[in-house]
Amino acid sequence: MTSTLVLLRHGESTWNAENLFTGWVDVPLSEKGEAEAKRGGELLREAGVLPDVLHTSLLRRAISTANMALDVADRHWIPVRRDWRLNERHYGALQGKNKKQTLETYGEEQFMLWRRSYDTPPPEIELGSEFSQDADPRYADLGADLPRTECLKDVVARLLPYWESAIVPDLRAGRTVLVAAHGNSLRALVKHLDGISDDDIAGLNIPTGIPLRYDLDEDFKPTNPGGTYLDPEAAEKAAAAVANQGR
Amino acid sequence: MTSTLVLLRHGESTWNAENLFTGWVDVPLSEKGEAEAKRGGELLREAGVLPDVLHTSLLRRAISTANMALDVADRHWIPVRRDWRLNERHYGALQGKNKKQTLETYGEEQFMLWRRSYDTPPPEIELGSEFSQDADPRYADLGADLPRTECLKDVVARLLPYWESAIVPDLRAGRTVLVAAHGNSLRALVKHLDGISDDDIAGLNIPTGIPLRYDLDEDFKPTNPGGTYLDPEAAEKAAAAVANQGR
Repeated sequence: MTSTLVLLRHGESTWNAENLFTGWVDVPLSEKGEAEAKRGGELLREAGVLPDVLHTSLLRRAISTANMALDVADRHWIPVRRDWRLNERHYGALQGKNKKQTLETYGEEQFMLWRRSYDTPPPEIELGSEFSQDADPRYADLGADLPRTECLKDVVARLLPYWESAIVPDLRAGRTVLVAAHGNSLRALVKHLDGISDDDIAGLNIPTGIPLRYDLDEDFKPTNPGGTYLDPEAAEKAAAAVANQGR
Repeated sequence: MTSTLVLLRHGESTWNAENLFTGWVDVPLSEKGEAEAKRGGELLREAGVLPDVLHTSLLRRAISTANMALDVADRHWIPVRRDWRLNERHYGALQGKNKKQTLETYGEEQFMLWRRSYDTPPPEIELGSEFSQDADPRYADLGADLPRTECLKDVVARLLPYWESAIVPDLRAGRTVLVAAHGNSLRALVKHLDGISDDDIAGLNIPTGIPLRYDLDEDFKPTNPGGTYLDPEAAEKAAAAVANQGR
């Protein structure tokens, strides 16, 4: 038995547009992001890839993207599961900071280490500060699990239990699963699916709003390694643009 | 222990605006309906009524209303449960028909019987016809449960098992529950909650887009019989308008 997994990175947010580190700050989609979400839904519909269940993070930009895409694809009525383990990487003290300014202040090496190294998290965010989530009711149950900063390795560590306990059971039941999430939580998932090394994952960028389909075998390994973008040409262009962020 | 239940009838749909019988036909919100949904979210936020879990029907107008209201109320991240048992009453062969024309064709008595009698359903819809749902994938599991027409009594009969098995457990867990649904599925629920007789329910209208809060005791009976609209003045005006539909 095989199953289908579709990954969808949220469309552009207002803070993507302003070139700010976002992380767990719950910003909305920009107008461009809303258009990307709807285009994502059109791609699903045109390809006949019809999700049976949706998994999202707890962040508005992923939730809105999924809502809009599924409405266009006429799949707005499918069951929904949400979990903080699909959230974007927590960007620690960098949350709310301008990427270009951060690059200028700290220099290329430190900047790229925080953005792309597998195991170097940014400095921790101060509890109670403007862009901290310690008083956010949606994370009230997390207790000591609430991150104050994360590197990609941390994201992999908190994502995989959800993959195993929540997403795999849906795949095992034969459902086509849509995961609407974020640049780094999806990179963490792709790293696991494709067996990408800690070093090589730095070079992987996932474009916004373009569904990425994985066909999985009975061990939930891809029969199409790297997955298949529903709009490959747009994906290639967009991935190149992501790599140049902050420049 | 007490719990809080909030009922929200979807905003105006494109077919409400055109005065057509809708039932299970999956039409979108009108622009006015979208504004009503957002206003509903503002009312929740202003009243500090913060849902912990959402229950919706499988129909776009209820789903979109909930999505928009919760986004405004900053509760877009709560868990979601959906079920066909919260759907609008199935209007049988009347689905897609103009209300005013139906009134003129069949006369006041027959029209009001179909609209308001407790136990007289409209004629059954023809399978495979334009506004039938027999080929709709979201109802594929229903089998013989798929209605071809319903009176309010039928709605009560299919709604109450969901109330008991899905909504009550959330209330028992202390959650504030938002139910985003339809004129008749909410009338069925209110009939049960307030112990309204089969005759008296005919006179009850629920306005669109105005959250209706019930405070429930430990037996899940209202301590505020009839519930409390979060905007009582608007609710009164709107209920009067609903009663005059089709005129």
